[in-house]
Amino acid sequence: MKLCEMSKEQLEQFKAECEKEYNEYKAEGLNLNMSRGKPSPEQLDLTLDMLNVLNKDNLVSENGMDCRNYGTLDGIPEAKKLLAPMAGVPEKNVIIFGNSSLNIMFWVMQMAFSHGVLGGKPFSQQGKLKFLCPVPGYDRHFAITEFFGFEMINVPMNDDGPDMDMVEKLVSEDESIKGIWCVPQYSNPTGISFSDEVVKRFAALKPKAKDFRIFWDNAYTVHHLTDDHTRITNIFEEAKKCGNEDIVYIFASTSKITFPGAGVALIGASDANIASLKKALGYATIGYDKLNQMRHVIFFDGKFENLEKHMDLHAKSLAPKFDKVLEILDKEIAPLGIGTYTRPKGGYFISFDSMEGCAKRIAQLAKDAGVVLTPAGSAYPYGKDPKDTNIRIAPSFPTLEDLTKALEVFACCIKLASAEKLLSK
Amino acid sequence: MKLCEMSKEQLEQFKAECEKEYNEYKAEGLNLNMSRGKPSPEQLDLTLDMLNVLNKDNLVSENGMDCRNYGTLDGIPEAKKLLAPMAGVPEKNVIIFGNSSLNIMFWVMQMAFSHGVLGGKPFSQQGKLKFLCPVPGYDRHFAITEFFGFEMINVPMNDDGPDMDMVEKLVSEDESIKGIWCVPQYSNPTGISFSDEVVKRFAALKPKAKDFRIFWDNAYTVHHLTDDHTRITNIFEEAKKCGNEDIVYIFASTSKITFPGAGVALIGASDANIASLKKALGYATIGYDKLNQMRHVIFFDGKFENLEKHMDLHAKSLAPKFDKVLEILDKEIAPLGIGTYTRPKGGYFISFDSMEGCAKRIAQLAKDAGVVLTPAGSAYPYGKDPKDTNIRIAPSFPTLEDLTKALEVFACCIKLASAEKLLSK
Repeated sequence: MKLCEMSKEQLEQFKAECEKEYNEYKAEGLNLNMSRGKPSPEQLDLTLDMLNVLNKDNLVSENGMDCRNYGTLDGIPEAKKLLAPMAGVPEKNVIIFGNSSLNIMFWVMQMAFSHGVLGGKPFSQQGKLKFLCPVPGYDRHFAITEFFGFEMINVPMNDDGPDMDMVEKLVSEDESIKGIWCVPQYSNPTGISFSDEVVKRFAALKPKAKDFRIFWDNAYTVHHLTDDHTRITNIFEEAKKCGNEDIVYIFASTSKITFPGAGVALIGASDANIASLKKALGYATIGYDKLNQMRHVIFFDGKFENLEKHMDLHAKSLAPKFDKVLEILDKEIAPLGIGTYTRPKGGYFISFDSMEGCAKRIAQLAKDAGVVLTPAGSAYPYGKDPKDTNIRIAPSFPTLEDLTKALEVFACCIKLASAEKLLSK
Repeated sequence: MKLCEMSKEQLEQFKAECEKEYNEYKAEGLNLNMSRGKPSPEQLDLTLDMLNVLNKDNLVSENGMDCRNYGTLDGIPEAKKLLAPMAGVPEKNVIIFGNSSLNIMFWVMQMAFSHGVLGGKPFSQQGKLKFLCPVPGYDRHFAITEFFGFEMINVPMNDDGPDMDMVEKLVSEDESIKGIWCVPQYSNPTGISFSDEVVKRFAALKPKAKDFRIFWDNAYTVHHLTDDHTRITNIFEEAKKCGNEDIVYIFASTSKITFPGAGVALIGASDANIASLKKALGYATIGYDKLNQMRHVIFFDGKFENLEKHMDLHAKSLAPKFDKVLEILDKEIAPLGIGTYTRPKGGYFISFDSMEGCAKRIAQLAKDAGVVLTPAGSAYPYGKDPKDTNIRIAPSFPTLEDLTKALEVFACCIKLASAEKLLSK
């Protein structure tokens, strides 16, 4: 029976049962964390052998550079070859940075702020600027645009990507809109992937602002959960066809392939964008950690297909956790009609939507019972979820046992908060 | 006999001999490089064992963090403990970044540009700004201030540090002066170290601009060439005594201790500065490479004194090279009175000053004979050496044999250019 179909008496009784169950969980003194998309120790062990692949005979790059020494600003050639497919661009259109793609995004934004984009006026001299934010989205993306003072405009995220009618209309009319955040494959947090049509419409965008850029965060490009691998359309190639290749910055990293704390991150972009960023980078550093690049190259024998195969091992570890979340939600929540959620084929998250006005209460209840979720509202700019429905579930880090317990608590909190809500009407 | 005392005939003959020698060198088709302060392969081998110190049992930091995973924004505690002495600050006053201290300097400048210093107005909103540049100095420092549009003001470098009368006068009068570059110990390129008095005057500076900062690049703090180790006065402690601890950012890295391409870099600063930078850093990344931090910790057994001992091995490799440079200059140049040069007790460079108006010609002659030097003028803002005398000699990278040959060619070029100069008068 759906909760909304219950009589007041039935609801009261339902709520009392939930409270009883909730208090039992609370008494257990739990300490479980589903807040961030962190790989589990089991996943990290998959790459243990990478720690010791370097020796005195494999430290020199193809370009003759001793990877231990200064030099090679934009990454060793074999690392570009290995990782360029993650951005879907030719090797020459890649710069390899340090360990964090978020750091590249921040830096690219900061460069636009101080020096402008491809000869354009610095953002710092253009007055109040705006940025498009498909919602729900990634909190750390929105934090960057908030930090640089952009007004963030919510764009609804559909099952096939952002609302492109809205995107096209806004960017063609408003020169103060300078970009849009995208996680095009296995999106954070909904897990959806952009359709062929959406990618093509992005590639063909004609923004009023010449310095508008699509921040295309390919965070989960090889992070499949099932054998049915999603392959989104290559935006770089599509943009080239439209003579529009300067419009997109593509980001990727090995954070969730090898080590989140010690991976390798990259940007893929047009010749002009790469030349401009590389010039600025020449002032900012002598070069990034080439030994870590070489570690990755050797571990994967320089081949992208080996990296892809490695991801099957991650999927084997992750898929049962996603299945468990869905199993519990299917059993506990769906029949009551008090929440909807996504069934991702990849990535790190399941996006849950409660009844309106319940998400904050659910997260608080869970927290009080020792289950930490990503704060409700995080997936929206300024942390403001207009309907207070969205909660991001990150099942990767806990053990299957802990996850099961956390989800049982979570389900109980959803039920309790929903009953409270219906009774308060 | 000094060259300036020669008759025209003697000079003509001297020049003819130099030209003959020069053409012989040219015919050898040399390819030697003394342009940058790069450690030699022999030095890099000193740290080879660091590549394989990590194993599954030593990946967890004291703070409970798995170094392979996300987390710990400002560096693992044991890395702070190991490296804080390089900045001369308590562990709590350190942030550990990636592999490049230059990158930290750039970023700190960029943050001041976009967000201001400790609540001050962003540099981007303060109009034309200025920066003090002790000369000769480090080209990459000056490149950063040039990139951000500062007007750079040359300050003469004496044997005990910059001309502090000039520094004090300028900063007390001009609010648009926002900082000064310093390499306080074994300075780049002169090799001098700041005296106790100079450090104390820096620590007590009262600039008109509240957002003025000393960029204190402790690049060579443990990089001694002799047993007579220079220990400069601790600017952080002195500044604290003056209630002035916010005035200085201290930079250091292990680039020339372990691997230039894969070291660990840090900033040391006051509580307020660290809090402000850490807040900004929280938007810019999830964290830097903690595995590489742990590699350093384990290689040095967590102890700064072991790191210091390790530097003796570098000194053993480097000192004979510095000796060779001085030996050849003492023999070939000093008696002719056509150049002066420094005799550093540490660091990576010898600073050579030719007769006025000869440096560019010497570097060009050397280049044409296959010996690449740092471009003449590099040690000055905008690459403009007002008297065209300064050349930075970087003896570290070539083998002793190559270095000897390169110095012989260099000496020949000095003699030839000096004779040309005197004859042209």
